[in-house]
Parts: sequence; structure tokens; C-alpha cells
Amino acid sequence: MPHFLTLAGLSATSLTELLDASAAYKRARPHAAAPWLAGKHVALVMEKASTRTRVGFEVAVRELGGHATVITTEGSQLGRGEPVEDTARVLGRFCHAVVYRTFGDERLQRMATSAAVPVINALTDREHPCQIVADLLTVREHLGTLDVRYAWIGDGNNVAVSWLHAAAVFKLTLTLACPAGYHPDPDVVADARAAGATIEVVADPVLAARGADVIMTDVWASMGQEDEARARAEAFAGYLVDDGLFLEASGRAIALHCLPAHRGEEISASVLDGPRGAAVWDQAENRMHSHKAILELALTGRAHGP
Amino acid sequence: MPHFLTLAGLSATSLTELLDASAAYKRARPHAAAPWLAGKHVALVMEKASTRTRVGFEVAVRELGGHATVITTEGSQLGRGEPVEDTARVLGRFCHAVVYRTFGDERLQRMATSAAVPVINALTDREHPCQIVADLLTVREHLGTLDVRYAWIGDGNNVAVSWLHAAAVFKLTLTLACPAGYHPDPDVVADARAAGATIEVVADPVLAARGADVIMTDVWASMGQEDEARARAEAFAGYLVDDGLFLEASGRAIALHCLPAHRGEEISASVLDGPRGAAVWDQAENRMHSHKAILELALTGRAHGP
Amino acid sequence: MPHFLTLAGLSATSLTELLDASAAYKRARPHAAAPWLAGKHVALVMEKASTRTRVGFEVAVRELGGHATVITTEGSQLGRGEPVEDTARVLGRFCHAVVYRTFGDERLQRMATSAAVPVINALTDREHPCQIVADLLTVREHLGTLDVRYAWIGDGNNVAVSWLHAAAVFKLTLTLACPAGYHPDPDVVADARAAGATIEVVADPVLAARGADVIMTDVWASMGQEDEARARAEAFAGYLVDDGLFLEASGRAIALHCLPAHRGEEISASVLDGPRGAAVWDQAENRMHSHKAILELALTGRAHGP
Repeated sequence: MPHFLTLAGLSATSLTELLDASAAYKRARPHAAAPWLAGKHVALVMEKASTRTRVGFEVAVRELGGHATVITTEGSQLGRGEPVEDTARVLGRFCHAVVYRTFGDERLQRMATSAAVPVINALTDREHPCQIVADLLTVREHLGTLDVRYAWIGDGNNVAVSWLHAAAVFKLTLTLACPAGYHPDPDVVADARAAGATIEVVADPVLAARGADVIMTDVWASMGQEDEARARAEAFAGYLVDDGLFLEASGRAIALHCLPAHRGEEISASVLDGPRGAAVWDQAENRMHSHKAILELALTGRAHGP
Repeated sequence: MPHFLTLAGLSATSLTELLDASAAYKRARPHAAAPWLAGKHVALVMEKASTRTRVGFEVAVRELGGHATVITTEGSQLGRGEPVEDTARVLGRFCHAVVYRTFGDERLQRMATSAAVPVINALTDREHPCQIVADLLTVREHLGTLDVRYAWIGDGNNVAVSWLHAAAVFKLTLTLACPAGYHPDPDVVADARAAGATIEVVADPVLAARGADVIMTDVWASMGQEDEARARAEAFAGYLVDDGLFLEASGRAIALHCLPAHRGEEISASVLDGPRGAAVWDQAENRMHSHKAILELALTGRAHGP
Repeated sequence: MPHFLTLAGLSATSLTELLDASAAYKRARPHAAAPWLAGKHVALVMEKASTRTRVGFEVAVRELGGHATVITTEGSQLGRGEPVEDTARVLGRFCHAVVYRTFGDERLQRMATSAAVPVINALTDREHPCQIVADLLTVREHLGTLDVRYAWIGDGNNVAVSWLHAAAVFKLTLTLACPAGYHPDPDVVADARAAGATIEVVADPVLAARGADVIMTDVWASMGQEDEARARAEAFAGYLVDDGLFLEASGRAIALHCLPAHRGEEISASVLDGPRGAAVWDQAENRMHSHKAILELALTGRAHGP
């Protein structure tokens, strides 16, 4: 089953194809005459809140001719303790694909093992591959190439891990500035290096930002981590992406943020709402375009675009 | 951007066009061959519970050929503190219009400022313009003209304010009976009078009902006011629309209520479930027909009907 | 109004027609060229959590060309105390059918009385007729005939009651093993016997399973009974459908379970996940196919299939 669960192990050809198809879907909108999802149903199983992922997928599915059904924990038997395998088996009988946002990565794996239809990872505590496809598309649009210097500031979280996977695929140069205790999984770092990526993990955001073309960050406390908010606020003090940090960056540097953003915490209002942050809104829009390409890849084994 | 945020300042021509288009959409149903929303997406952002507004808009959007996406506070990042401007900017990239039900009017204004697509006010704590378009259509259907005497009994709330705006547009005669502390915004009253409407605010429901052709009321405690319920129940004791009050009204008088209703509180069962209240169910249905005209006005700048 | 509220009183011809149409819809999928719901709206009013019913109906409605609108208690005025009659009257103006999952059967009756469009019972505390249509279809598929021996193990709940209704329609042989205090409504048992069904209610699961071709069970604590969970766990100890119980059954016996299941409580993992339980997943899938036939019956008065 051609699931889309991770960027790890994707070939550069495959990921490039995904980016090309995403860009093609974007160019074609709104007249994307590719209703290859007509008559097909996609279950959007959302165990966490979602704006961009959920609405982006719902619009994407619809524009491809299909029908999306949003399933939440509270509204379904998942909230009453039904094993994910049983929900998976049933959804696989009704629908042609499952887009799944959940907590532990093992829940995603269990969904994929049992669903009998393609499953797409729409965020777990460990990875967020769909986000990074949109991010890469945005870099390509704004800088004309992926061969630039990347900085990740803050938490070595699920988005950072998927970025490390992308760095491995394309042999990118990525420096992560993370406080102690919030480094990304060292195995993922090692794998990326082994694959040819140039990865550094440092403590000082200035070191990461120096000469960077893309400065990325994310909220300090992601969904499900709200009770760690105080400890995290202390750990991440100083890990603010602001104008000062951009003085260290290259002249063409852009900010990326997967949103929602907390201005004054991980990113300053002047960056997010200024010219550096303009890419963030394209990045959000690109979620929807790249969702189409991801659906095509998962459902047909290739991403051709419209 | 031709938002639909308020009835204030609308011309009589414009509001009449909206009513004509609403009536035309109603006549044409179910064969309303006007799929001018085909391929378009409308976000229904509901920060408060909704039956008539939400289902009415969802059916309206669908019958115009479009696709509606319902977004709730809990299901989206709005519930996790995302500024409404950021949600607005993203929805404006995915969707072609935003229908927004929220609390403070300032949230609506922020959505409209940032969305880059037309925004429709689907109720705020201050106004409820969509409701009044349906109300006016209902009066026209039942009484043949808008040039009648109107009485509003109870809370000078958001629905009353939008009625004052409509009174200003059409120079209507509207008497509001409200207890002390629950009068409508005096500036809105003054503006309506300045525009040529005949507005009185009195304490005694009998004075308002005397000779009235339309007697309107609303729940004592609207959404978000549940903790004021006891104080409101005391203040509104005596502000009951019942058969006795209709004895003061004109022979053809009808009741209007935007629902949900609390029988025995603001309206008696015998009125709501009797011939006087029959218009209430047409009024509810008319929400959906007028939503179509409102969408057309907001998205195309004109309301032609099917 | 041709509502679909109960199996009680259906003729064998009618229920057979429903099963035939369900099977025909299943065979025709995904190319079911019967978009007779085109332009029509179905309200799915879900006052309890739902996976199979809700997604099954949403997919069914869509594949018939229609549009489904999911309405929950919290999201609508039902959660703010609006009488079900008022919601019914309004939904009947907007939509062409209402599928209703609720608590007391009287709420369903009130919806049906006031809606002015066909209402379909999607589970009440008393009955679950849609489930049994799917169950019967599954028996027919797996055993080739409905003329077999049925055993119900556990709670004489809403599903058991609808099974008694089906037994009455087809004069089936059904033995229920229920602990004291959890017997099905004796009037329903008496009616089924009077109609020609062979019904026994026993205490010992082994007695019920002996020679049975279909062994059915359900969760011990259904939705809304969570606070009785401990008392129920004691009462139902020993009412486990496991391999030992199947040793008593016929060689071709299958298990049915309407899901969600609690492995190790009412059914063992080895039964549910083994060959005996394979029918359970067909049973779940059959929900969606039979929903189409039920919609057709309710909306057109006949179930022809595609």
C-alpha cells in the first residue's frame, strides 16, 4: 500500500516529483481539470485541532472531485476507546484514503497496517511530512532553489524531524539551534548525515542564523504539551526569531513558520508581519496545493499534477 | 472588498434588491439553476452554536454549486489562541468567502480586514444582519408590504440593533419595549431617527404592541449570557409575547422569533404554536433563501437571484 | 410520511426488498449510477458519538448524489435546550430527510412527528433498526439463507430488540442468553412469538449457543450507560463470546458484533480477529450499502436499488 507516512527514505526524484506536481496544481488553480478523485471518499481523522491541514485537505479533496469526511475523536467511537485498528478496518471499507492526525506515531502505524487503503500522515508527535512538502515548495518559489542554507530555531520537534528527513533526501545544509533537552532525535540526525546532509545542532540561535537563507521556527509548546508550557518557556527564552537574528542571516533570507504563531514568543511580530515573514502565508497556502500532490502519490503511486 | 457585515448604511435600493433576489431564490427552489458558486469554497466559521445559520448556509452554498467547510473553535487553532487575523489570512488563501459567527464585533472586523475574501456577518454580540434580511422577506410575504408597524419586545440586543438598521434603511415605524438596562445602543436609535425612521423606546410592552402588525422578540439570555440568566429573568418578567399582548395588536399581526424559543419565557406556546406564530417557521426557512442572495451580493457585488 | 423508525410491523416482503436493494447497491459499487438523491440534502443529527452510522450514511448519501449535513448536540441549538420539535420543523424546511441518533425513543417520535420529511432511526436507547438490516444482509451473504439458528449473548438492549422485531418479520429462531435484570422487553418477546418467531430467553450462554449458526453480542455498557459500567461488568461476567462458546455452535457458525468491540469483555480477541469474526467487518461495511436502500425506502416509498 503506497502510504504517505514519512519523508524518510524517499528518493530525491520522488520528492522532486511531489514538489513539481504541487507547483503544477498551484498554477492550474482554480481551473484544475483533474477530477481523478471523483466518486472517491477521503476520511480526515483529526485527533487534534487543525486549521490548515483540515481545511487544506478538505478543499484539496473537493477540487480533485472527491468527498471528504471529517472524523473527530469526540464525534466518533475513537473517543469511546475503539482500537484504532477497528476504526481503520471500517474506514477502509467506506473510504478510499485516510488522512490521519494523531498523537503517538504508533497510532499512525496501526492505522496504516489495518486500513487497507492509503494512509497519509497529517501530523504525529514524531513527524509532520505534509508540512515539509509545502515548506520546500515555498523555498523553491521564494529563493528559486532548494540548495540554500537552512536554520531551525527552537524545539527539535516533529517538524524539525521531518525537515531532517528532507535534508537527508536532498543533502541539504541545516543547522538547528535547540536548548538542552530539546534536541532532535540523534538517530535521525545521524541518518541525515549518513545520507549526505550537512547537519549541525548548536545551542546558540545566532550560530544557526549566520548566513542562513531560511530561518524556521515553531511554537514552543505544541498540541498536547500545554502542561509543559512553563518549563518550555524557560528553556526557549532567547530562542526568538526577531529582526536581530535576521541581521545574521543572508540578505535574501526568509522566515518560515507552520502556524499557529505566538508573536513575541518564538517569533517577533515585526518578522512575521514584515517582509521576511511574507513567505509564511504562501507556505500556509501551499499546504493545500501540496496536499493534492500527496493524495495523488498515495492513491495512484505517482504525482503527475493536473 | 464587498463584505456583508452590517445593514447600517445600506441603501433602500440595495436592501430591496437583496429581498427580491431572496424571494427569487425561494421561488426557484429546488430547481435553482444558478450554480455560480461552482468550484468555490465557503468557510463557515462558527464560534457559537448554530442550527439555522449553519445548516441554512451549508444548504445554500451547496445549492449554488459550491462547497462549505464548517470550522469550529474547538476543532481549529482558533481554540488554541491563534489570532483571528492569522486564521483569516489562511482561510482567504483556501476559500472564496468566510461566513463568521463570533462574539465581539471587533473579531468580525479583524476577520474582514485580514481575510482578502468577502466576509459575511453570521451574528456577533452587536449585530445579526442576515437574520433581518430573512425577517423582512417574511413580513413582505405575510403582510404584502414592509410599510407596517413593528414592535420589538424584550432585550435591545444584536437582533434589535440590526432591526434598527433596517428601520433606518426603509424609514420604518418601530417601537421597542425594553426594561431598564436593556435598551438598544442609543447611538443606533439616534442614527435611525436621523435617517427618517420612527423609533420609540418604551418600558411597557402594551404600548409597543398597540396597533402593531409585527411583534418580535428573542430569548432573554443569548449565547454567552447564560450566567446572567437569573438577573435577566427578573428584568424581563412581564416581557412575554402572549395572546393578551396580541389583543393590543392589529388584526393581521404576526409574531416573529429568530429561534431558538423558550416557550413561557419570552413567548407563549399558544402564540408560537398558533396561527400568529406560523410566520416563525417561514422566517426560519427564509434564512436559507436569503443566505443565497447575501452570498451573491458579497461575492459578486450584486444580488440578481437565480 | 414513510419514516424508517422501526422494524416492528414491517412485512417480510418489504424487509426482503430492503435486503435485495442493499445487496444490489453493494454489487453496483463504486459505479452505482443511481443519483436519485441529486440536489437533495440529508441532515445527520447525531446526539451520540458515531463512526459507522455517521460515515456510512455520509458516504451513502454522497454516492447517491446527495449532500449530508452533520449536526451535533454541541454544535447546534439542541445543546442549548431547543425542543426537538422546533429543530425538526426547521430541518424539514432545509433538508429532504433527517437521520437521527438520539437517546430516548420519544425524542425520535417527536422528530418524526414534526419534521415534515422522512426520518430515519439511526439508533435510540430502544431500537437500532438500521443495524439489523446490515446484520441480515451479512447473514445472507455468509450463510446463504436467513433460515438459520440465531443466538444473542449478553444485554437485551436496543440491538436485541430490533433483532426480535426482525425475528418476528421472518419467523426466525432466536435464543437470547441474558443475565437477570438485562432481559429484553417482555412485550417485544411476546409480540415476536405471536408473530410466529421461535424465541427463548435463557440465562446460560451455552444453551443459547448450542447449535447456533449466528452468535451475536454487543458491548456491556452502551453509550450513556458508562456510569453503570461496574454493575454491568459484574452482571455480564461469563457472558463472553469466545472459542469455547463456539464449540457449542454449528460448524459454520459466524460471529456478529455491531462494534465498537471490547475484546476480552463481551467477545474474545481470538473470535473477533479470527475466521469466526471475519463477518463482523462485512457487517460494518454493509451498514453503508443498506443505508442506501433505507434512504430509498424512506424517500421514495420503495427500495429498488441502483
